[in-house]
Amino acid sequence: MTRLGDRGHGELRPFNITRNFTKYAEGAVLIETGDTKVICTASVENKVPPFLHGEGKGWVTAEYSMLPRATSVRSVREAARGKVSGRTQEIQRLIGRSLRSVVSLERLGERTVWLDCDVIQADGGTRTASITGAFVAMVDALAKLQASKQLTQLPVIDFVAATSVGVVDGQALLDLNFAEDSRAQVDMNLVMTGAGRFVEVQGTAEGYPFTQNELHTMMDLGKQGIDTLIAAQKKALGEVANNIGVVK
Amino acid sequence: MTRLGDRGHGELRPFNITRNFTKYAEGAVLIETGDTKVICTASVENKVPPFLHGEGKGWVTAEYSMLPRATSVRSVREAARGKVSGRTQEIQRLIGRSLRSVVSLERLGERTVWLDCDVIQADGGTRTASITGAFVAMVDALAKLQASKQLTQLPVIDFVAATSVGVVDGQALLDLNFAEDSRAQVDMNLVMTGAGRFVEVQGTAEGYPFTQNELHTMMDLGKQGIDTLIAAQKKALGEVANNIGVVK
Amino acid sequence: MTRLGDRGHGELRPFNITRNFTKYAEGAVLIETGDTKVICTASVENKVPPFLHGEGKGWVTAEYSMLPRATSVRSVREAARGKVSGRTQEIQRLIGRSLRSVVSLERLGERTVWLDCDVIQADGGTRTASITGAFVAMVDALAKLQASKQLTQLPVIDFVAATSVGVVDGQALLDLNFAEDSRAQVDMNLVMTGAGRFVEVQGTAEGYPFTQNELHTMMDLGKQGIDTLIAAQKKALGEVANNIGVVK
Amino acid sequence: MTRLGDRGHGELRPFNITRNFTKYAEGAVLIETGDTKVICTASVENKVPPFLHGEGKGWVTAEYSMLPRATSVRSVREAARGKVSGRTQEIQRLIGRSLRSVVSLERLGERTVWLDCDVIQADGGTRTASITGAFVAMVDALAKLQASKQLTQLPVIDFVAATSVGVVDGQALLDLNFAEDSRAQVDMNLVMTGAGRFVEVQGTAEGYPFTQNELHTMMDLGKQGIDTLIAAQKKALGEVANNIGVVK
Amino acid sequence: MTRLGDRGHGELRPFNITRNFTKYAEGAVLIETGDTKVICTASVENKVPPFLHGEGKGWVTAEYSMLPRATSVRSVREAARGKVSGRTQEIQRLIGRSLRSVVSLERLGERTVWLDCDVIQADGGTRTASITGAFVAMVDALAKLQASKQLTQLPVIDFVAATSVGVVDGQALLDLNFAEDSRAQVDMNLVMTGAGRFVEVQGTAEGYPFTQNELHTMMDLGKQGIDTLIAAQKKALGEVANNIGVVK
Amino acid sequence: MTRLGDRGHGELRPFNITRNFTKYAEGAVLIETGDTKVICTASVENKVPPFLHGEGKGWVTAEYSMLPRATSVRSVREAARGKVSGRTQEIQRLIGRSLRSVVSLERLGERTVWLDCDVIQADGGTRTASITGAFVAMVDALAKLQASKQLTQLPVIDFVAATSVGVVDGQALLDLNFAEDSRAQVDMNLVMTGAGRFVEVQGTAEGYPFTQNELHTMMDLGKQGIDTLIAAQKKALGEVANNIGVVK
Repeated sequence: MTRLGDRGHGELRPFNITRNFTKYAEGAVLIETGDTKVICTASVENKVPPFLHGEGKGWVTAEYSMLPRATSVRSVREAARGKVSGRTQEIQRLIGRSLRSVVSLERLGERTVWLDCDVIQADGGTRTASITGAFVAMVDALAKLQASKQLTQLPVIDFVAATSVGVVDGQALLDLNFAEDSRAQVDMNLVMTGAGRFVEVQGTAEGYPFTQNELHTMMDLGKQGIDTLIAAQKKALGEVANNIGVVK
Repeated sequence: MTRLGDRGHGELRPFNITRNFTKYAEGAVLIETGDTKVICTASVENKVPPFLHGEGKGWVTAEYSMLPRATSVRSVREAARGKVSGRTQEIQRLIGRSLRSVVSLERLGERTVWLDCDVIQADGGTRTASITGAFVAMVDALAKLQASKQLTQLPVIDFVAATSVGVVDGQALLDLNFAEDSRAQVDMNLVMTGAGRFVEVQGTAEGYPFTQNELHTMMDLGKQGIDTLIAAQKKALGEVANNIGVVK
Repeated sequence: MTRLGDRGHGELRPFNITRNFTKYAEGAVLIETGDTKVICTASVENKVPPFLHGEGKGWVTAEYSMLPRATSVRSVREAARGKVSGRTQEIQRLIGRSLRSVVSLERLGERTVWLDCDVIQADGGTRTASITGAFVAMVDALAKLQASKQLTQLPVIDFVAATSVGVVDGQALLDLNFAEDSRAQVDMNLVMTGAGRFVEVQGTAEGYPFTQNELHTMMDLGKQGIDTLIAAQKKALGEVANNIGVVK
Repeated sequence: MTRLGDRGHGELRPFNITRNFTKYAEGAVLIETGDTKVICTASVENKVPPFLHGEGKGWVTAEYSMLPRATSVRSVREAARGKVSGRTQEIQRLIGRSLRSVVSLERLGERTVWLDCDVIQADGGTRTASITGAFVAMVDALAKLQASKQLTQLPVIDFVAATSVGVVDGQALLDLNFAEDSRAQVDMNLVMTGAGRFVEVQGTAEGYPFTQNELHTMMDLGKQGIDTLIAAQKKALGEVANNIGVVK
Repeated sequence: MTRLGDRGHGELRPFNITRNFTKYAEGAVLIETGDTKVICTASVENKVPPFLHGEGKGWVTAEYSMLPRATSVRSVREAARGKVSGRTQEIQRLIGRSLRSVVSLERLGERTVWLDCDVIQADGGTRTASITGAFVAMVDALAKLQASKQLTQLPVIDFVAATSVGVVDGQALLDLNFAEDSRAQVDMNLVMTGAGRFVEVQGTAEGYPFTQNELHTMMDLGKQGIDTLIAAQKKALGEVANNIGVVK
Repeated sequence: MTRLGDRGHGELRPFNITRNFTKYAEGAVLIETGDTKVICTASVENKVPPFLHGEGKGWVTAEYSMLPRATSVRSVREAARGKVSGRTQEIQRLIGRSLRSVVSLERLGERTVWLDCDVIQADGGTRTASITGAFVAMVDALAKLQASKQLTQLPVIDFVAATSVGVVDGQALLDLNFAEDSRAQVDMNLVMTGAGRFVEVQGTAEGYPFTQNELHTMMDLGKQGIDTLIAAQKKALGEVANNIGVVK
């Protein structure tokens, strides 16, 4: 099996992180990984959802959507259907949980960070690209609060990034594109921190239950990919990255 | 009153049309006019809505949406609200009507052209930019059908483009940005064809009913702007433009 | 082309305004124009929508609906569908905007005027009849507030009325009925004040883009029609009409 | 206790049935009973709901709505809320069941009769007035089908009408207006046929459970009222009434 | 006609009331009547709906649902449909009204009692079983409030129970199962208090209007059935039953 | 840390599988694990969703719900809210995927198996109990199809069961109850087949990202628990179990 562009089985697709992609959001990132492109914006609201009223803590939440022609066949808009699909909600919850895992909600204070991930082109791995890109957008937004003295320190504890791994024709592959994903026997999404710990491990057999050994191989590939992604986040953020995890 | 960038009262903002902005849609245009940026895609479906079954004619319809952070304050997604707002529906109907005015639905045959206009950054004039950009996307999509012999000729009768005009502090202005629009006493959207005829004239007094003279001044300004926009569409489309309006 | 009842091309259909048509609403008007019949009621609520809280200003808003058998074929109720159609929302927004153009929201104070326009029989021109009738209902409701000393003066600045004009078989016609409207190449709704200024100009080509000259002809016809309608509103309101536009 | 207009405890309010109240519906009745006014239209559709496909039988169904200002305080439209209330659905089901009780669905054939009851003014007893008025509208619509030879005979077996009775201050009263209904300890709706049989008996204690004797008194009053109403239906329908219940 | 299990025409099906069926609800009853099984829970919330704010009174409300396979053919969940059906709402309103008829809302104070009736197996009479079972659950929940001194006395004035009666093949029958109910010409639900008074009488002709005599026969049968049910409630509640209706 | 009932860290709660819990569904299981109780029914429908039309294959899908008082605080019904929550949809998708992993959709043929999991009491682990119980209900339903010769063989390839594991106070625990789950730093759901392979591995850090070692420890515990559950499924199914996985 040859991968598109002669990519190795443990190799990420070419990717790029563009900060300040749009002008209004406090954090606005375009993340491109292969042909997958997601606009991730971060917005800060000075209130929290009802279940946190009076707790003195903040919240981080995410919304995810695809433009109708992000895909090869046009999909119906969820607004036109009048409801958000189960798949979308599952992805939104995953992004939100992943980002919360590296934020000190106490240090954030009574604020909500909204992460909007809008896929403009989808070629596999949109949810993991969203996590990786939303992290950069969130740091940008929170750094602005710090710069304007609304926060005394950045409430970001560590980096977080995500990638997918899968088994295709018996071979474990990193960062599946859509064509590979469609043929995968196992599909796994991994979310990890800069410290190399797991935030989410979601492995799903698509008609082919897998062994613990296969799981390990996939996790090792994923770990390498995430290390590369976090290095790229660090580079993209430049000096802002230095304040991550630092508690004064 | 000085306009941003020393723009004249009858001058359009700098604008740009990028074709093939994403890879899956048959027509995919990024239109930028000042800081307003809209992705317009055109998709062709080989069926028509129920009210046209068996009529041997096609349909052209539009959907419009804004990303939550297209604006300076984050707006709630319509999918999350569970319904499409009145404003959005009004815009969708306007875009659809405008594009249909230059398409021969008979020559299109039993197909639907879906025009998706997704605003990624909004600084005034998003509905008129959507019309101008969607036209180019639609031509691209239909030209592909023609190239693949699914259509013997391009069912596009004429060009169509749109712009806004308004009265601010008693002065008629072309192509209002958001700041100007917020202060306008009259707000008018004009949709015109390449032949210089009107498709839509929508003038609304915002607390200051206007005279017929003011209407004329606005329409003259709008006409000039639309001429410029249609020239730009023509240039962007290159050779494809030659088939517009030609009936063999 | 002969019009029903030998009506001239610039002649309105016979029309009638009945005040106090129902007993509970503060303003309750039956407006009949030809076979189009609309019940317009005005209700005053002592609060404003959230976006006006604390502004010291009022609001005027409208809702529009058709009984299922207002038309020759029964239409499905919007309540049964679970949502208000795009067409209805567009009409509601138009009625609201038109009425607000002649109300001083400051003098109205923190109140909302709800205008309900329910079409019991539809033969073209329901939205323009709604505007013309709702104006009378609104004045009645506000005059009652004035009579009961809740308002020191009537916050109504001017009259407002509306009519439609169109081009059928190349001929401009005033006040189209349904049969004429179905065949019109251009359809225009005009909303004007007692002072002869425009509040809304909405011209739409139905498959036949129009010239500026045609626009002028239509606007002239519309203006004459609206003058007649405003005279009728004045007559229907009797003495109450004397307080319109008067600021003490 | 004196009733409004010195009405006797077993006396109906003045009432009136106007046929052909609007022009498009096959049956269109305005029923007025005291200050309660309901427009009842009947529409015939040449298909049946899915659960009757291929059964060779027809269906009769009803929809009910109030204009927002039918009442002294404006109520929110169900279309605006996006759903039909429990109360409305209960009333719609009651009207439908009541009318079906006097229709031979076999003789009706594969058709649906839609009865639309729109309350334009509500002073108690809107659901029973709707039944009484909808019956007349339905007969008119079906008689037109017979006249045009689409039906060989009228599929209406008997008359049906309805009224309310209640106990107020220990006294049984016929045909409660809103003020009486608000104070009633027991509220009962009766639906009866021309043959004097019961179609629906719905008695509800409002905080004061009632005895079997009280039930009898109420039913006797109701029976007298319904006899009067059916006589009025007969008179309103004129010759058409002669075909009711007649099977050739 | 022989009834299942040689049941007499005036005989209830075997029934059983199990208290504390689940562990979290303050009142949790499984009521079984024949093959009909309903879980009835009572929950107390320390607030009231908006229309009772500041009235110093409480509220009792009910929700009713069927598991998809409570019936022989799987029914679609109302949550999946996105709305509660008319039938469900009608039943919910009936249960709520019935229970409120025996509660002193003043003595309950500013609290809401939620009665949830979830049918896990349906063989006719689910709404009446819900009422009979919900009463016991409600008493249990309120007795706990009394035991914990949140209420000084039980705000329950009397017992309430319900059953169905019907006419099948000309014969009046008590407590119809699903097979009988499907063939019934008349279907009646009765709700009565311990004092033998009526709370609800709902008789519906299914294609066969009924006489006053038939109504009486049905009501007599129903009364006997309800006496038996109330005796069973009393026995099930044990000592708690002694506080019902007692005002100190 | 001592667990409730002196349970060992790798010990399941007492559990029980009751077949034929209700009478109408083809498969109807009550699964109890500790205080968690779920009714799982299986229904077979002789058609497939649109995306499988004409594929000659079947489908297995699941719906999940909680009774309002399955929990210590009453939750609002999803039917009343008008939409299914993200959490519910995520669980439904997980149950469906898990069951599909052990069914040969080809051998099932053009049928849909609906698995309804209704939680009547919730003390942690409701989604995993649903999977374990739904498997037994599904086998029962499919065995009935086989018994009635509608299927020549059981299309079930293997057993499938699920459990949760977590880390509480640094200690890995099997089968968390609600109290433990609320305090868990890591929460993992495992779905495995009778052959000991993984169908789903879903590990989520709750504010405490975990290491690969911790993951291994959790997976080992989970594996032991699932072996025990599958043995119990086998025992509960008796002779029917012998046909699982057998292809003739």
